[in-house]
Amino acid sequence: MKEIILASKSIDRGEILKRAKISFKTFDTKLDEDKFKEMVSDAYHLVKELAKTKAMFAKNKIEDELDAIIIGADTVVLLDGEIIGKAQDEEEAFKILKKLNGRTHELITGIAITETNNPKIIVDTVKTNVQFINLSDKELKLYIKNGEWKGRAGAYSIRDKASLFIKNINGSSTNVIGLPMHKMFEILRKEFNLNLLQADI
Amino acid sequence: MKEIILASKSIDRGEILKRAKISFKTFDTKLDEDKFKEMVSDAYHLVKELAKTKAMFAKNKIEDELDAIIIGADTVVLLDGEIIGKAQDEEEAFKILKKLNGRTHELITGIAITETNNPKIIVDTVKTNVQFINLSDKELKLYIKNGEWKGRAGAYSIRDKASLFIKNINGSSTNVIGLPMHKMFEILRKEFNLNLLQADI
Repeated sequence: MKEIILASKSIDRGEILKRAKISFKTFDTKLDEDKFKEMVSDAYHLVKELAKTKAMFAKNKIEDELDAIIIGADTVVLLDGEIIGKAQDEEEAFKILKKLNGRTHELITGIAITETNNPKIIVDTVKTNVQFINLSDKELKLYIKNGEWKGRAGAYSIRDKASLFIKNINGSSTNVIGLPMHKMFEILRKEFNLNLLQADI
Repeated sequence: MKEIILASKSIDRGEILKRAKISFKTFDTKLDEDKFKEMVSDAYHLVKELAKTKAMFAKNKIEDELDAIIIGADTVVLLDGEIIGKAQDEEEAFKILKKLNGRTHELITGIAITETNNPKIIVDTVKTNVQFINLSDKELKLYIKNGEWKGRAGAYSIRDKASLFIKNINGSSTNVIGLPMHKMFEILRKEFNLNLLQADI
């Protein structure tokens, strides 16, 4: 079977794949994401460009050595048309969570899938709405002390303690963790002749 | 701090609590759920009765020994008004998944929370819609070989390989795993003066 390369250093993305019993290797693309964010203001365009760039970067590096499917992904939070990234410190995490508090925001993931020795690349986006219950400033600060905000778009982790204050989601639930699994499954099945339900049998 | 007792033997429910860094003990209520299902045909009524009975059973057993919050929960799948339970074997798992395939079903959880030495018991329900993509019979059978169907309402596990074919959810995402975390958080905060964001700080 082909190898699967996840062109992302996200621990969360890797964990969803592991739970689905999919074997993969990660490839850290070390992109300067901020540069992209300066150049591309539309959220859907941005996540597609980042996902594609991550996938292509990994593909170019490994093409001579491996026979592999490469998956790139990038996720942003969108609120009132504003792209909300990752917090750099606790103060910024508080500002972000205070904005999201008691409201519904959008999680948008771009996913790009390609294959070594194949010019085909499929790029798509998936959107999920996420609604928070209302927390006091004190509660937001207690949540931040946990450290879950680190490295996460929107400064929270739905699989962990933030599950306590996420009231509703509408869309793909794995998309909120950074990798819309049904979309990946459908693209691989339709475009790359790889069926992940079959893979480990 | 009070102890938290989860009156459920579900590994999935326990894992959500663990991921939220909440300390708890489980108490297996060993209820004859089938008896309830014969007597109560309305899904909302059924899950409330089961959650309440689990919580009260545990409370009566431990009241003399512990100072504790007790949480009972029960989840059913509802499709076209029909309650769909757990499969007993692979054949039944296939029948269930074949029904859910390509469609939207409802996950309904009843949650009951009470406290030792306090007559108060709060019972509520949470509904989440779950939509599957369309799988072939062969794919359904491959999924079943995984064994995730065992002991799960609806014969699938959203956190595991079934993430590949769950396109959309609308509602609480932890409810799909059997414990609507925001609802538990809100009831404990409002009715039992326990704030789970504060608990481990």
